[in-house]
Amino acid sequence: MKPIMLQFDHSGKTPLYIQLYRYLKEEITCGRMEAGEKLPSLRRLSRDLSISITTTEQAYNQLLVEGYITSRPQSGYYVASIVGSGVYSSADPAAAYDFSTYTFPDSSYKYDLSCFDFIKWKKCMSRVLTDYSHMLLFESDPQGEPALRYEISKYVYSSRGVTCRPDQIVVGAGTQQLTTHLCRIMKRMDIGHVATEDPGYLPVQNIFRDHGFAITKIPVADDGIRIEKLPTNIPSAVYVSPSNQFPTGSVMPVGRRYQLLEWARENNSFILEDDYDSELRYFGKPVPALQGLDSGSRVVYLGSFSSTLFPAIKISYMVLPPALTELWQSMKSDYTQTCSKTEQLTLALFMEDGLYYTNIKKLRSLYAQKLQTAQAAFARYGSGFATPTNTSSGINIILKVRTRKDPALLCEAAASIGISVLPAASLTDQDTAALIFYYNQIPLDEMEESIRQMIELWQE
Amino acid sequence: MKPIMLQFDHSGKTPLYIQLYRYLKEEITCGRMEAGEKLPSLRRLSRDLSISITTTEQAYNQLLVEGYITSRPQSGYYVASIVGSGVYSSADPAAAYDFSTYTFPDSSYKYDLSCFDFIKWKKCMSRVLTDYSHMLLFESDPQGEPALRYEISKYVYSSRGVTCRPDQIVVGAGTQQLTTHLCRIMKRMDIGHVATEDPGYLPVQNIFRDHGFAITKIPVADDGIRIEKLPTNIPSAVYVSPSNQFPTGSVMPVGRRYQLLEWARENNSFILEDDYDSELRYFGKPVPALQGLDSGSRVVYLGSFSSTLFPAIKISYMVLPPALTELWQSMKSDYTQTCSKTEQLTLALFMEDGLYYTNIKKLRSLYAQKLQTAQAAFARYGSGFATPTNTSSGINIILKVRTRKDPALLCEAAASIGISVLPAASLTDQDTAALIFYYNQIPLDEMEESIRQMIELWQE
Repeated sequence: MKPIMLQFDHSGKTPLYIQLYRYLKEEITCGRMEAGEKLPSLRRLSRDLSISITTTEQAYNQLLVEGYITSRPQSGYYVASIVGSGVYSSADPAAAYDFSTYTFPDSSYKYDLSCFDFIKWKKCMSRVLTDYSHMLLFESDPQGEPALRYEISKYVYSSRGVTCRPDQIVVGAGTQQLTTHLCRIMKRMDIGHVATEDPGYLPVQNIFRDHGFAITKIPVADDGIRIEKLPTNIPSAVYVSPSNQFPTGSVMPVGRRYQLLEWARENNSFILEDDYDSELRYFGKPVPALQGLDSGSRVVYLGSFSSTLFPAIKISYMVLPPALTELWQSMKSDYTQTCSKTEQLTLALFMEDGLYYTNIKKLRSLYAQKLQTAQAAFARYGSGFATPTNTSSGINIILKVRTRKDPALLCEAAASIGISVLPAASLTDQDTAALIFYYNQIPLDEMEESIRQMIELWQE
Repeated sequence: MKPIMLQFDHSGKTPLYIQLYRYLKEEITCGRMEAGEKLPSLRRLSRDLSISITTTEQAYNQLLVEGYITSRPQSGYYVASIVGSGVYSSADPAAAYDFSTYTFPDSSYKYDLSCFDFIKWKKCMSRVLTDYSHMLLFESDPQGEPALRYEISKYVYSSRGVTCRPDQIVVGAGTQQLTTHLCRIMKRMDIGHVATEDPGYLPVQNIFRDHGFAITKIPVADDGIRIEKLPTNIPSAVYVSPSNQFPTGSVMPVGRRYQLLEWARENNSFILEDDYDSELRYFGKPVPALQGLDSGSRVVYLGSFSSTLFPAIKISYMVLPPALTELWQSMKSDYTQTCSKTEQLTLALFMEDGLYYTNIKKLRSLYAQKLQTAQAAFARYGSGFATPTNTSSGINIILKVRTRKDPALLCEAAASIGISVLPAASLTDQDTAALIFYYNQIPLDEMEESIRQMIELWQE
């Protein structure tokens, strides 16, 4: 056996047993100590290195746990057989990221902090973290916190005409997450076909695609999805946004809604109603949800808090009809909740205190002013060039811009002055670029000048 | 045309235009006003009802938006054709949940608030909601907040020997969510086979099953998964927990780790290393991660904060090898982030301030004491009957109980006195019930008495 030559660092920075463990590990890994070789006894090595037996034993134990050495009763410790250690070299730590600098960046986009009262939200969150912190020592219910589901069932009834019990509600971290659950439920029902709006909300279609669903894209007219083109004679589901179609903003009239319900009933199919921001209708009252017209068996209602609280909150919910509720209850323990329990409980308190309703009221008034200011600015600076459509609801305006420029370039130009604009490819043609303009993010007092600058850039 | 007989409620509770809108909607829905019927002009109806023209116009506009009436230029307003409204009656509001009572429930399980410093956490969260609230006006990066990924890359290097850059890290709301991403990545690589540990962590297997993967269950021995039984000649992935196998607690020795890496290299396959709570090793230092032995191309490393912060936090992360990082970057915009941005930023501050490291240190000391107290209690009250195994790491103890009782009954008995115990079916045989006992949730000063009571119940 080769002698163990180890100079301890006695500065106290690294425990002696760790130093000994690292030395022996390196000797074994690089092959200087060979498989089967006997190690010195605890007593012997401790004496040679002038350390305590406990220190040596701790080092040997760590090597034992990690498998670098083995022990044979009444015999001693031996180097284990480690094949392949020469081939693999751990990555160079120097290749790791430079840790010396990181700061929270400011946003390159305009934003409006008056859209949400973070102080009141913080108070509710503080209550959760002090008065209810014991609840955070347990995982959230896969279906969502009962307190929040209770508040949602009250809210959707009073504001959207949706009738349900809290046990029909499933909370998830965003519409994609809820759609994932729906895919699981539909697969159990042997439904493999989904129809979606064209143009429509793409993030949801990615989920259907990932789960292997056959997707039929159905064109959208001024009065919503073309019902006569929906699949018949096969059970399926149709994903619609009847109260504020994304991105066109069209509203499905009540007569068409009944036709859609009739289609679902006749074909043993389901309507997935995405009601993502219908609370935000500025002139007149919000259009009631389709779910409220149903006798409650064919419509899955989906709602979200991103537009009415703040965009980074990932809390969405769906209301299942009774039959699907039962199926979901039988399978929900297979899945963990993705939505933050702290934020779910915070939102429950925020709603209980009436602050959510106050916030929506404030947003309706603020966004109505922003919309009117934006419309006036487009009329003044972009008349005949950039025409806003869909200006009575939601957090964006669809702009039709008379240009042959690439819409992506227009979006880049807007981004360069901090304005968030996305291309609406399906509404774009040769002479007109269609764009989704997030007017809501721009502070009211910057609206006119921002639009003037944006149009100037586009006309260059 | 029938006369419009409407008694307004002038109390101010409901705007007049809403009252008129509701009245007309009801008349149309129940068929008292028929499709095609002409409505009175704005001027005429306003005069008849003694209300302003604006009020009447608001009511008509709402009916127009919702599709109950149509307007013809130069002619007036007409009742729309609504087929099917008779068939569907909206659900009875009385069937809705009784909203009169809801209170946050206390837990029926024991819990230990000394496990986590919610006051310090709250301070970090308050900083996010005041100093960085503007960041919450934008959605989180699908890959996770850069600030958090930066802190994680520092942490996994220093504490687990994992070398990576922040751009290799993906943050998600729990291991199931990250596994969902892995399924998407593997499908793009035409990998359709997964091997899992038996016994192993079931929630992850549900995700592989949902995505249509072929799953091979590989037995686990004392030194980890049986490598010789892994699939060969076909690209696949193996899901392992080498540093604290769930639920057996076994540690894969370094020699076997190199063999596993060799298997992955030879078969063009991947190792999914779940390192969920390996920081929590109480006697000696934690076993370094397998990822650190790899040259960085075959191992996906998965970590979680549930055991080291608090169970309700849903923040997990994975470290992708460079090739998978590139693939992920190309597809990530298809998906939204499920993990709370507020909590991600809070955790970044918590780690930056060194509080995370402090907390792990505190947990190591607290849980070591709890484990020793628990072991002593089992020796005193359950000798020869209930034997704890796997008592050097993690947040649970595997108990082997000599009984022919149904393990589910033992769990119920434990739950009746607030103790969380789950059956470990795969380790149970005719004469021995294997149970997963979450000792960490029980306050230290209640440990001995809780175990005494639990054993007494089991022996009844």
